[in-house]
Amino acid sequence: MIDAALLGTGGMMPLPNRWLTSLLVRYNGRMILLDCGEGTQITARLLGWGFKNIDCILITHFHADHISGLPGMLLTIGNSDRTRPLTIIGPRGLKPVVEGMRRIAPELPFEIRLVETDGNGFETEIIGLNVKAVRLNHRIPCLGYSFELSRKGRFMTERAIENDIPLKYWSMLQKNDRVEAEDGRVFTSDMVLGPERKGIKLCYTTDTRPTEGIAEFIKGADLFICEGMYGDPEKLKSVEEKKHMLFSEAASLARSGGVKELWLTHYSPALTNPKAELFHARNIFKNTKAAHDRFLKTLRFEDE
Amino acid sequence: MIDAALLGTGGMMPLPNRWLTSLLVRYNGRMILLDCGEGTQITARLLGWGFKNIDCILITHFHADHISGLPGMLLTIGNSDRTRPLTIIGPRGLKPVVEGMRRIAPELPFEIRLVETDGNGFETEIIGLNVKAVRLNHRIPCLGYSFELSRKGRFMTERAIENDIPLKYWSMLQKNDRVEAEDGRVFTSDMVLGPERKGIKLCYTTDTRPTEGIAEFIKGADLFICEGMYGDPEKLKSVEEKKHMLFSEAASLARSGGVKELWLTHYSPALTNPKAELFHARNIFKNTKAAHDRFLKTLRFEDE
Repeated sequence: MIDAALLGTGGMMPLPNRWLTSLLVRYNGRMILLDCGEGTQITARLLGWGFKNIDCILITHFHADHISGLPGMLLTIGNSDRTRPLTIIGPRGLKPVVEGMRRIAPELPFEIRLVETDGNGFETEIIGLNVKAVRLNHRIPCLGYSFELSRKGRFMTERAIENDIPLKYWSMLQKNDRVEAEDGRVFTSDMVLGPERKGIKLCYTTDTRPTEGIAEFIKGADLFICEGMYGDPEKLKSVEEKKHMLFSEAASLARSGGVKELWLTHYSPALTNPKAELFHARNIFKNTKAAHDRFLKTLRFEDE
Repeated sequence: MIDAALLGTGGMMPLPNRWLTSLLVRYNGRMILLDCGEGTQITARLLGWGFKNIDCILITHFHADHISGLPGMLLTIGNSDRTRPLTIIGPRGLKPVVEGMRRIAPELPFEIRLVETDGNGFETEIIGLNVKAVRLNHRIPCLGYSFELSRKGRFMTERAIENDIPLKYWSMLQKNDRVEAEDGRVFTSDMVLGPERKGIKLCYTTDTRPTEGIAEFIKGADLFICEGMYGDPEKLKSVEEKKHMLFSEAASLARSGGVKELWLTHYSPALTNPKAELFHARNIFKNTKAAHDRFLKTLRFEDE
C-alpha cells in the first residue's frame, strides 16, 4: 500500500491557513516529496512522518511557490541525522537553481544527486515505485509525475503442479522472477503465477493547462491530484493567461483518464472556500474532492 | 514614534507554533524588515501592516533561518503593487547570495539595490531613521543593527525674543535648521531651540556571542532585542560552540549597555517554554521580556 499526504493546497504564496501545494508519498517506510514551497517543512512536521526517510524530492518547476522551501527542507533533513544520498529530480535547469539556493545551505551531512529531465519518456524506480514524468503546459517548463506499484499474479497451485515444480520452490517463485533448482533446471514465476493483477497508480499534475498528454498519462489512476486555481467559470480567461486550470477542466481530465478519484489543489489565494465551488467539478466527475492541507489517503490493492 | 513588531522568535528552523526571528520596524508609515526566514511573509501577513511599504530589508547573516524566505517575500512585495526600488543591506557576499536565491524569483516589478558592508562604521538614513551596524561574533560574518530617531530641542520663546527673530519665522525654525528672512538675514534653529532632547533608540543583535562591541553599540537604547538560545546555564558550552548566547548573557549586555528594556528571541527549537526560564535573565536585568511571535511595542519620545 502507498500513503499519500497532500501537505498543502495553496498556489502562489503561503497563507496563514493554507500551505503551498506539496505531496508526500510513502511506501514501505520510505518517502518521496513532490515540490517544496516556503513552509512545506512546517506542514510536514505537523503531519509527523519524519524527515530522515525522504529519499527523493521531485520538483515540478522553478516557480518559487514550488521550490522556495528547498534549502530549509534540506537543512531539516540534515538535522534528522540522514547521511544517505538524496536525489532531486526536476526539469532542465535544476542544477543552477539548486546551486543558487544552496548558497545559504552549503553544508549538508548527505550527498545530493541531481537529475534533470525534459519529461519525455522519463521513467525510474524510486523507493520501490515506478515513477514517470509527463510534460505539462505552463508558463515555464513543468512536469507532472506518476507513481505505480505493480502487482504480481495470484499463485496458482494447478499451474505449479502442471509444470512439475517441486514444492520447495513455490514460495521462492512468488518473490523471484527466476529460480535455479539444485538439479540445474530453471523455473520462472510465470510457471506458478496467474496474469499480473491491477496495481496502484497515483498521479500529480500542477501547474498546467489541460492537455491530451495528461489524459493519457493518468489513464486508470486510483488517485489523480490536479490543480484547480478557481471554480468559477468566469475565471477561464485568467487561468488561460496564467496557464492554470478551472475545477471543471481538472474534472474533464479525470473523466477522460478514467481515474477513480480526483483531488483538487493549488487554489488561488483569492479562493477562500474551495468546497463551495466543488459542484463545478462534480457535475463533470462525481468523485472529486476539494482537498485541504494534510488530506490523506492510503491506496491499497483492490482486494486488500 | 517607532513601531517595532518581532515577527518570530525561533532560531534554526520554523516550527508549527514559532516563526523564525525577524523584526519589522515602522516609522511614518514606511517599514524596514530585519531578516527574512522561511515563513516570515506569513507571520507578516498575520500582523497586517502590509507589504508595499517595506523600503528596506536588512540581513544579519546568511544562515538559512535568517534569509531563506527572501524570494517569497520579494514576490509578495511585488504582488502588493510596489514599483519603487527596494534596498537590501547585508554582510559582504550579499550579492551572490541574493543572485542565487533570485533564480526562482527573477522577475520583480521593482528595482533591487544591494548594499554590502562589513559593519565597521556603517551608518545610513532609511525611512527617516538613522541606521547603524555593528560586527557580531558568530560562525560566519554577522551584523547587528540599531535605529535611532533624534529629537530637536524644545522651542524657547525667550531665546527667540533674545535673538530678535520675527514671529513669522518661529514655526519654520522648529522644522528647518536654517531659514533666510526676506531682508536677507539668516536664522538658524539653535537660535530658538533648547538643547537636543533624548530621542529613540532600538537595537537588534542575533546571532552572536556577547561582545564588548555590543555593550557599546546598545548604549542607552530604549529597546534591545537580543538572541537567547537557552535559559539553562548548563547549555553554556553548547552556545559557546555554536556562537550563540544564554539568557543571562543577553541580560548582562543589557545591564552593561544601560538599556531600558530587553526582549529575548531566537530560541532553540528545544526550548519550548522560554517564560519558564526567564528568571535566569531577570536576576541580572529586571526589565527582560521573553518575547513571543508578533510581540509589539510603540517607542515614543519620553514625554509623549
